[in-house]
Amino acid sequence: MSKHFERDLEKLHRQLLELFSRVEQMIDLATRSLCERAPDLAEKVISGDAIVNRTEVSIEEDCLKILALHQPVAAHLRRISSIIKINVDLERMADLACNIAERARDLSQFPEFPLPERLPEMVMEASQMVRWAIDAFINSDTRLAKKVIHLDEVVDQNNFQIIQTLRTLMKADSTFVEPALHCFSASRHIERLADHAENIAEDVVYVVDGDIVRHLHGQFSLNIERTENHARD
Amino acid sequence: MSKHFERDLEKLHRQLLELFSRVEQMIDLATRSLCERAPDLAEKVISGDAIVNRTEVSIEEDCLKILALHQPVAAHLRRISSIIKINVDLERMADLACNIAERARDLSQFPEFPLPERLPEMVMEASQMVRWAIDAFINSDTRLAKKVIHLDEVVDQNNFQIIQTLRTLMKADSTFVEPALHCFSASRHIERLADHAENIAEDVVYVVDGDIVRHLHGQFSLNIERTENHARD
Repeated sequence: MSKHFERDLEKLHRQLLELFSRVEQMIDLATRSLCERAPDLAEKVISGDAIVNRTEVSIEEDCLKILALHQPVAAHLRRISSIIKINVDLERMADLACNIAERARDLSQFPEFPLPERLPEMVMEASQMVRWAIDAFINSDTRLAKKVIHLDEVVDQNNFQIIQTLRTLMKADSTFVEPALHCFSASRHIERLADHAENIAEDVVYVVDGDIVRHLHGQFSLNIERTENHARD
Repeated sequence: MSKHFERDLEKLHRQLLELFSRVEQMIDLATRSLCERAPDLAEKVISGDAIVNRTEVSIEEDCLKILALHQPVAAHLRRISSIIKINVDLERMADLACNIAERARDLSQFPEFPLPERLPEMVMEASQMVRWAIDAFINSDTRLAKKVIHLDEVVDQNNFQIIQTLRTLMKADSTFVEPALHCFSASRHIERLADHAENIAEDVVYVVDGDIVRHLHGQFSLNIERTENHARD
């Protein structure tokens, strides 16, 4: 690997880690805004989206420059092509954080609405998946990446339980319909955040081992029954 | 461009068009299953997902082979890197078609539930976006790609109206809560299908003109007010 290539790759990694860290912060603020009914935190999330959008464009441009200038092969090529995909995942995770923040803002207008008990648990697990996916990428740690893939099934299961709770609330009291729908959307957004963390984890396994593990989740199964609200492989 | 490169690129395009066509068919079946309350069509969609997953893996591998072997630059490099991203979009669109089919299957158990009037309209627009995105890609037609980007706002607007209708139904009659939630999810999945078609259209503009149009939707605005349920840029 030439000195130039090494320097450009380092710069790219630095940019990606900054994006990771910004997106993680947005998720943290958005989910706190939701669970703590703090609409002021929601505003901070939404205002941060523009920087993420610019960073995504810049990272993609840098990936193409590296491909054109250094024409990497084998593991380096896999890494760059994975960064192209991870970059897209991160930008969409930031969008989801904004979506959660918007739902949190709307939900804060219904202080009497009881948030499902499982919600903070699901938030914790999805945030854990995001953090582990980042660490797995930084340290090329496929063991940790596989733990991320495992955990997705637990998040799906919690999402399913939350939806059951919301359904019961809406049936019991029609004044809960509106806030429950906001909460339903927020729960789905969190589940999709976890899906993106899983995509990143799958890319880490691919970069390190050259194994494509997506669509093969059975082999990592925790034997949790697949629910009607699971995300597809 | 060498003969080998030309041949590999043609093969890659052929594979991608096959995937496009399969995904389009899955979307058609899934949305018909939903609007015509035909659960047998839903089963066909779900059974088609495995082939899409295999094709996605194969296309990504071919992209990497082309990058390693032919080391393309400029427009060719943009095209390959866009195919890496479009391939992911298509696979996720197939997943969404399966999600819609699952909701259609569940909804078919509630024959008395009135589907929102706007639903077939939204389905038509989202399907149009997918078809146009494919045509724009095949013919490198940026004018058509920009029409796709326009149409997304109309889909978002219809999704918002559908959600309003569902909310009213649920408030009026608690027996509608369960089917309305299935319909709510299906409507969100259709909206996300449209978002993926928009991503593809943005990639077409990028490949052809080198312009990055994502996150700049204001410039194509149809002056439809952004709704609380719009997808983020």
